[in-house]
Amino acid sequence: MATGPSFAHRHILGMEQLSQEDINTILSTADSFKEISVRSIKKVPTLRGLTVINLFFEPSTRTRLSFEVAAKRMSADTFNINASSSSTVKGETLPDTARNISAMHPDIIVIRHSCAGTPLLLTRYVRAAVINAGDGAHEHPSQALLDLMTVNEHRGTLSGLKVAIIGDITHSRVARSNIIGFTRMGSEVSVYGPATLIPKGIEQMGATRSPSLEEAVRDADVVMALRIQRERQNDPLLPSLREYSREFGISRSILSLAKPDALVMHPGPVNRGVELSPDVADGPRSVILDQVTNGVAVRMALLYLVMGTS
Amino acid sequence: MATGPSFAHRHILGMEQLSQEDINTILSTADSFKEISVRSIKKVPTLRGLTVINLFFEPSTRTRLSFEVAAKRMSADTFNINASSSSTVKGETLPDTARNISAMHPDIIVIRHSCAGTPLLLTRYVRAAVINAGDGAHEHPSQALLDLMTVNEHRGTLSGLKVAIIGDITHSRVARSNIIGFTRMGSEVSVYGPATLIPKGIEQMGATRSPSLEEAVRDADVVMALRIQRERQNDPLLPSLREYSREFGISRSILSLAKPDALVMHPGPVNRGVELSPDVADGPRSVILDQVTNGVAVRMALLYLVMGTS
Amino acid sequence: MATGPSFAHRHILGMEQLSQEDINTILSTADSFKEISVRSIKKVPTLRGLTVINLFFEPSTRTRLSFEVAAKRMSADTFNINASSSSTVKGETLPDTARNISAMHPDIIVIRHSCAGTPLLLTRYVRAAVINAGDGAHEHPSQALLDLMTVNEHRGTLSGLKVAIIGDITHSRVARSNIIGFTRMGSEVSVYGPATLIPKGIEQMGATRSPSLEEAVRDADVVMALRIQRERQNDPLLPSLREYSREFGISRSILSLAKPDALVMHPGPVNRGVELSPDVADGPRSVILDQVTNGVAVRMALLYLVMGTS
Repeated sequence: MATGPSFAHRHILGMEQLSQEDINTILSTADSFKEISVRSIKKVPTLRGLTVINLFFEPSTRTRLSFEVAAKRMSADTFNINASSSSTVKGETLPDTARNISAMHPDIIVIRHSCAGTPLLLTRYVRAAVINAGDGAHEHPSQALLDLMTVNEHRGTLSGLKVAIIGDITHSRVARSNIIGFTRMGSEVSVYGPATLIPKGIEQMGATRSPSLEEAVRDADVVMALRIQRERQNDPLLPSLREYSREFGISRSILSLAKPDALVMHPGPVNRGVELSPDVADGPRSVILDQVTNGVAVRMALLYLVMGTS
Repeated sequence: MATGPSFAHRHILGMEQLSQEDINTILSTADSFKEISVRSIKKVPTLRGLTVINLFFEPSTRTRLSFEVAAKRMSADTFNINASSSSTVKGETLPDTARNISAMHPDIIVIRHSCAGTPLLLTRYVRAAVINAGDGAHEHPSQALLDLMTVNEHRGTLSGLKVAIIGDITHSRVARSNIIGFTRMGSEVSVYGPATLIPKGIEQMGATRSPSLEEAVRDADVVMALRIQRERQNDPLLPSLREYSREFGISRSILSLAKPDALVMHPGPVNRGVELSPDVADGPRSVILDQVTNGVAVRMALLYLVMGTS
Repeated sequence: MATGPSFAHRHILGMEQLSQEDINTILSTADSFKEISVRSIKKVPTLRGLTVINLFFEPSTRTRLSFEVAAKRMSADTFNINASSSSTVKGETLPDTARNISAMHPDIIVIRHSCAGTPLLLTRYVRAAVINAGDGAHEHPSQALLDLMTVNEHRGTLSGLKVAIIGDITHSRVARSNIIGFTRMGSEVSVYGPATLIPKGIEQMGATRSPSLEEAVRDADVVMALRIQRERQNDPLLPSLREYSREFGISRSILSLAKPDALVMHPGPVNRGVELSPDVADGPRSVILDQVTNGVAVRMALLYLVMGTS
């Protein structure tokens, strides 16, 4: 990687900003890092001496750990700020928090926040590269990129596929980023979920609203179930877990409508028996654990590429 | 350590699995790491590039810190997951959590869990080596090994000794692992504590139930007091702290019944004036701080040895 | 830095112990580290293999992060213990906690505690160098040193200046350490704040009690606002935030009484509109972010200098 791919983005804020070529650059970079990441000696000196701050305003173990593993495998120094419980933010505005952290000269800030647009706001106040690790219902680009990488590995292409995304589309940054990513790469996306939880303008995003679960899944190459947010279970717009499972859960019989070699995906953690029946979650078509493995590789690629533009 | 000792265990689940020869291998490896660990430059490159995850489902500072220090002194990268408050586990089964962590390709997982058998369960779902840092009332092998190392340093042998273990034996993984360890090395273990808290089958474990505190301690080479769990103080089976101190606490007069050079041990943190009177805790026979120092060395040895088998 | 400056202090407990020459040594060492810290490759091997424990008995993000960044930029291994929620301290005395941590052979312990004198107490029980990161209302020496460094950078001197410190002087370790530091370097300090929150013996510390905000700020070279503790807002001795802002807040008109090139300082996080009006906080005289940047450099210097004495 001496010459390095051309990549013009200083920050990774969303799939919206990434061209087809950008996505191809990220995925091929991630491929080469994946080889390093799964060998027994997994560490490269690429980012030695650089400072990566994980600034999480929402609790997260999985995504935070994945970024931290990615950063340390590239020899960066990592610092975790759990800002929800942090004295950093007591009575302090986000710009002040941002400028203060920036004054310690970090190189990369990975941010998760419950408000859409916070990563963009952050870029105005810091010199560091900013990577969005999920902002409200807006975007979660590293998740979409690891999903694209996983599909590409198994199918050898990202164009001409039919992708079904099932669940609460309205509140899902995973759905949004994946709809943008898959359509940009030349695939079709159908969505299905509780009627109240499919946004009105879904067609303008390039996705198709399916009339039924069966239609969404029929002939699909990829069946992606979204996580139901248990903490939102008192929301009257949401069905109960039992109803959800019956009407929106992916069972073996539903999956039989998809292509014979369709991939089953989920951003995790899976509520077994709710979004996916156990036999589907553990079945031969499930690539859920490949998603997790590729998450580390994609995040290594993002950390590497944003530093190449500094 | 170029050739390395022979050690056949991929995982460290309990003292139960370790032969006398295994224990000797661990202790002699720990001895050589201890020399490194207490010098001013304490770091060796032995585990450079390897990923060690501390997966703690119970709160812990002491054991977690000891493993983290051990791992970093061998140049491993460490990651702490406090799973009790973790989004990893919301609605997720242990196998799913395990497979997800495994998909990030860690080399070693150090696990503490309130359920006995969880470390064993974990080995079925991960490729990493697993080290049990305490599972329910079952085992705490690294604690027993550091106790054995400490006694061996002071006595020059682990056979033919009389070891008294005082406290709540039933709920103590420290007691269980030490009973197995000391008897396997050829020593005798006597236990004493509240009558309701000595398990029925204690003789089958190789220990002797003493009729009194005096009998347990008389002529002992080692007097090990267990920590009283203050958080269980509402348990009607447990005496009050005051009663405990009077009936089961090790005072100077009780200790005078033991051998003149008997060692006083405690897994920490000590409730001063409860399990041990302050003069005993700080007295010349106390090796409590040696236990802590040896904890780092034993854990370095365990991390090293399990990697040698991969 | 091959020969190293002469520095006789094994521990950094407070400004009280530091001579003018010591302070000059720290500031010039910090200057040279600052050059490293703000370059793109920020890491030096100076403290490789050493163990730095951040032992925080009060919640902190900012100071803890600054020390952690400083330690990692010198290649030390860092360990965070949030002792307020720690099992380390359940039923354990501070000396026991200290001796236990010491038994793991750390090189430096950075401690924050709500009780004045705890860092000094700690030195009696550990072999490590101890750095006070704030003890009750007593001292916060690294904060005062970064303030001195910031003023020195902008003014080229620390003598003959007039420094105004505004706020709750009685409960502020920042005020105490700065009064000692600035007067020792040959500057004058005036304090002003709520009448009940100016300690009686302030003159014995070398500071002057101002009769009014205007008098305190008039002709000042430095205007330092202290943070109001929102968590103490139920204290009947404290004015409401609104009253505080009106009577003690630094507005542009108040600041116009100071020298034309006066510096505005605040230890952070700022309550905007309370201690400082927003235009002052962001104005051309504000050096608040320089304070944060210099914080890393000063802490690198302290870590380096205490190790040179071991």
